[in-house]
Amino acid sequence: MSNSEAPYERFTAAARELADLGHAESLLHWDQETCMPRRGSGPRARSLGTLAGLVHERLTAPDLVELVESLDGEGLSGDARVNVRELKRHQDRALRIPRELVVELTRTESLAHEAWVEAREKSEFVLFQPWLEKIVDLKRQEAHAVGFTGSVYNALLDHFEPHARVEEIEPLLGELRRRLVPLVEEILGSEAAAQREDLLEREYDVALQESFGRRVLADLGFDMEAGRLDVSVHPFCSGSHPGDVRLTTRYAAGQLTSALFGIIHEAGHGLYEQGLPAEAEGLPVGGSVSLGIHESQSRTWENAVGRSREFWEHYLPHLAECFPAQLEGVGVDRFYAFVNRVERSLIRVEADEMTYDLHILLRFELEKALIEGELDVGDLPGVWNERMDSYLGIRPGSDAEGVLQDIHWSMGLIGYFPTYTLGNLYGAQFHRRACADLGDLPGQIRRGEFSGLLGWMRENIHSRGSRLTASELVQEVTGEPLRVDYLMEYLEGKYRPLYGLD
Amino acid sequence: MSNSEAPYERFTAAARELADLGHAESLLHWDQETCMPRRGSGPRARSLGTLAGLVHERLTAPDLVELVESLDGEGLSGDARVNVRELKRHQDRALRIPRELVVELTRTESLAHEAWVEAREKSEFVLFQPWLEKIVDLKRQEAHAVGFTGSVYNALLDHFEPHARVEEIEPLLGELRRRLVPLVEEILGSEAAAQREDLLEREYDVALQESFGRRVLADLGFDMEAGRLDVSVHPFCSGSHPGDVRLTTRYAAGQLTSALFGIIHEAGHGLYEQGLPAEAEGLPVGGSVSLGIHESQSRTWENAVGRSREFWEHYLPHLAECFPAQLEGVGVDRFYAFVNRVERSLIRVEADEMTYDLHILLRFELEKALIEGELDVGDLPGVWNERMDSYLGIRPGSDAEGVLQDIHWSMGLIGYFPTYTLGNLYGAQFHRRACADLGDLPGQIRRGEFSGLLGWMRENIHSRGSRLTASELVQEVTGEPLRVDYLMEYLEGKYRPLYGLD
Repeated sequence: MSNSEAPYERFTAAARELADLGHAESLLHWDQETCMPRRGSGPRARSLGTLAGLVHERLTAPDLVELVESLDGEGLSGDARVNVRELKRHQDRALRIPRELVVELTRTESLAHEAWVEAREKSEFVLFQPWLEKIVDLKRQEAHAVGFTGSVYNALLDHFEPHARVEEIEPLLGELRRRLVPLVEEILGSEAAAQREDLLEREYDVALQESFGRRVLADLGFDMEAGRLDVSVHPFCSGSHPGDVRLTTRYAAGQLTSALFGIIHEAGHGLYEQGLPAEAEGLPVGGSVSLGIHESQSRTWENAVGRSREFWEHYLPHLAECFPAQLEGVGVDRFYAFVNRVERSLIRVEADEMTYDLHILLRFELEKALIEGELDVGDLPGVWNERMDSYLGIRPGSDAEGVLQDIHWSMGLIGYFPTYTLGNLYGAQFHRRACADLGDLPGQIRRGEFSGLLGWMRENIHSRGSRLTASELVQEVTGEPLRVDYLMEYLEGKYRPLYGLD
Repeated sequence: MSNSEAPYERFTAAARELADLGHAESLLHWDQETCMPRRGSGPRARSLGTLAGLVHERLTAPDLVELVESLDGEGLSGDARVNVRELKRHQDRALRIPRELVVELTRTESLAHEAWVEAREKSEFVLFQPWLEKIVDLKRQEAHAVGFTGSVYNALLDHFEPHARVEEIEPLLGELRRRLVPLVEEILGSEAAAQREDLLEREYDVALQESFGRRVLADLGFDMEAGRLDVSVHPFCSGSHPGDVRLTTRYAAGQLTSALFGIIHEAGHGLYEQGLPAEAEGLPVGGSVSLGIHESQSRTWENAVGRSREFWEHYLPHLAECFPAQLEGVGVDRFYAFVNRVERSLIRVEADEMTYDLHILLRFELEKALIEGELDVGDLPGVWNERMDSYLGIRPGSDAEGVLQDIHWSMGLIGYFPTYTLGNLYGAQFHRRACADLGDLPGQIRRGEFSGLLGWMRENIHSRGSRLTASELVQEVTGEPLRVDYLMEYLEGKYRPLYGLD
């Protein structure tokens, strides 16, 4: 940093340098999942490690710490205030976690991940247990180093959902569980549920799936001059800046809709990234709010739009042109029911819109209990299985189908899961507001017009960057704090008729 | 750098960090040419600028300078000596060029490049002239800052062909010109030359071209688990390390062989990169020797192998299976003559093997005269056209076809051109030695066996990394210094029979 510049200009130069390094990290990660040849992995990991080390070094450099401290005390306003606030949040966290703990976490997560892979293959939780115990212990140390008020879990949650507090979200998530469990039970006990069939187990040419997916992607408003669509084992969205946003999906010839809904889901993330304020590119204010707000976008486009009756009124004829033999005689009613079938499933990533949150709530409750010391790792499989039974009426036959199914804990991602359900809650509340503002949104979707909804998202959410926190944003956009009612009303309104309930 | 480690370990850690940053730069460049969406260019340029700045900062950090200085004085041996020598060469250069000059060069090159694009479009050299004058002036300043003995041009040449000196290469390049000009004249004046026809102006499906190219690439020994082949506007090879080497080519339906020879050429570079010593990955000794040695590999595989009669005895039947209608009745003799036709061409990148070096020699002579102050930029187009006439018997009808055709000077790449012809000279001398060592190399190629030649290259050139300088390598491998005879003997031996000359 040259000291001849004004303090805030020195600050933005440092922030932009961090963004430039983040851009490189992001591209190296994207390439690793999409393009990198097999033998490239060793040096790639080292290069990513070096970049992460440099980011840490620059972020915590004494002169930047001093600069942020002095700017923070100056009472800045507007974007400058947000930029300093957000960078300071990252800086504080980086400064507080001792280097030895970072090294120990990185090392443990890498070994725990290997142990998890083996444990899942053999379906033996005991192989993973000592590693998860160590992870829980280290994450508690991390939380204490970072600092918190209230629950120790807050320090971990804040990393993924900034400014969220367990004392505020737990009552909402508890209410959601109490209202969702009986609805799911009612649906799954219905006559219609007993008759559901998987009518689409046929072969669907992958190249045709891809061209149909690209057509939908363009219709939704995703700008291919500022993005890409590729293939990876696990679908994701990687955005360095609004001009370069990359989505991935995966195709399987035996499945008609999984790649497509993957594309629409990632497009939700990607539209958000493309809509972030270009004028603030490279500065914290130009970033997204939180994982939860990100997920509100992907879930809304995937479910409220992509799994709506109107969407398929528009697209089913086009899909049937791609696959005339396979879809012969399949009408909108049948197709709509198919893409919205509710099932007692063991595996979260395969769960439907109705049961998905129960999978998440279970994980949130268990990881919180682990971190707060109210649950021993050794008791985890039993509690998992009991709770699956009580929430979904189904019991895993093995650890692989139960407690070992997710990668998150093996990578030290504790505090991440609730952002999925927060995303559904934010999404339903935004969607309700958008419907009110836009008038006939269903009619627009029926005509294949998505610019109304996208414009609404751009104006109310995307273009704001990270100027507001998640709860400020919800209040500002919808006029009230986050509530469970909108998600429940959406689910009741959609699924009761589908399953022939009152 | 932690001071608790031994000095040489601190040195290698710093060198590896520089390699890790180089890996990131390399991937960002590759992505820019192959994958990046159009709107990604601004932030990409900034990220690359930041990485380049960091490399400069780390390379010239006072403690690394001191460390290199002290290690250099310690009389190290083996790989350690090479690592320190090579890093010190880069460090010295980076330290000697003043920051203001770097900034001025970067700015000027960017603007000069824009001016060149416009000048070439309009075919008006005067639009580019002031920018080239400025570039020449700044490159002279750079040379004086770097320091040199003998010609000022040496300081620029050394950047691309380390340890080469114009006093040594100029006599060789002069001799080559004196021997090549009359041979080209004789060939182009022959009866056979008057009869040459472009018999392959048909349509060749691009997907079939690609699959044929991939087959050849695999046959040559390029490891697809450690590399890729993609498409870009200008073909190139990008190698971060031996486990990740990426080639590009470009396909045109109207041209049968240009994509294929592009692939073979880049494969020559790629095989070199894949064969560099893996045990020294991330350290200077694990790198290639010079651009000239790199070009010796690409030219040997493209021309001595890929344009040989034996190569097409093996591959023509396979190619004819891909394109049976287009190649009906085309025998090996006709095809071999077609891929080796000699022409008076104005454009370097389209020139054949026989005339290519004359295009290069002209550029070398002119850029050296510019830098040494013996030629004014304003006189360049006239001198260019005269010399084209005297070397190749052809005169550009416009500046676009003449002095404005190459991008190099607009980007400040002065001292780069001679590495192409040095590559041909190195390549011919290595190839002569390989033929002697391997016994029946033509027979192996006729059977589609390339492992003999690749093994020879691996052992004698690739696995040595940068342990020897280019001239040491030539002496070590061939037992004598670089000579013009081998390239001339190769060309005479191949083209005299082809053109029916004694």
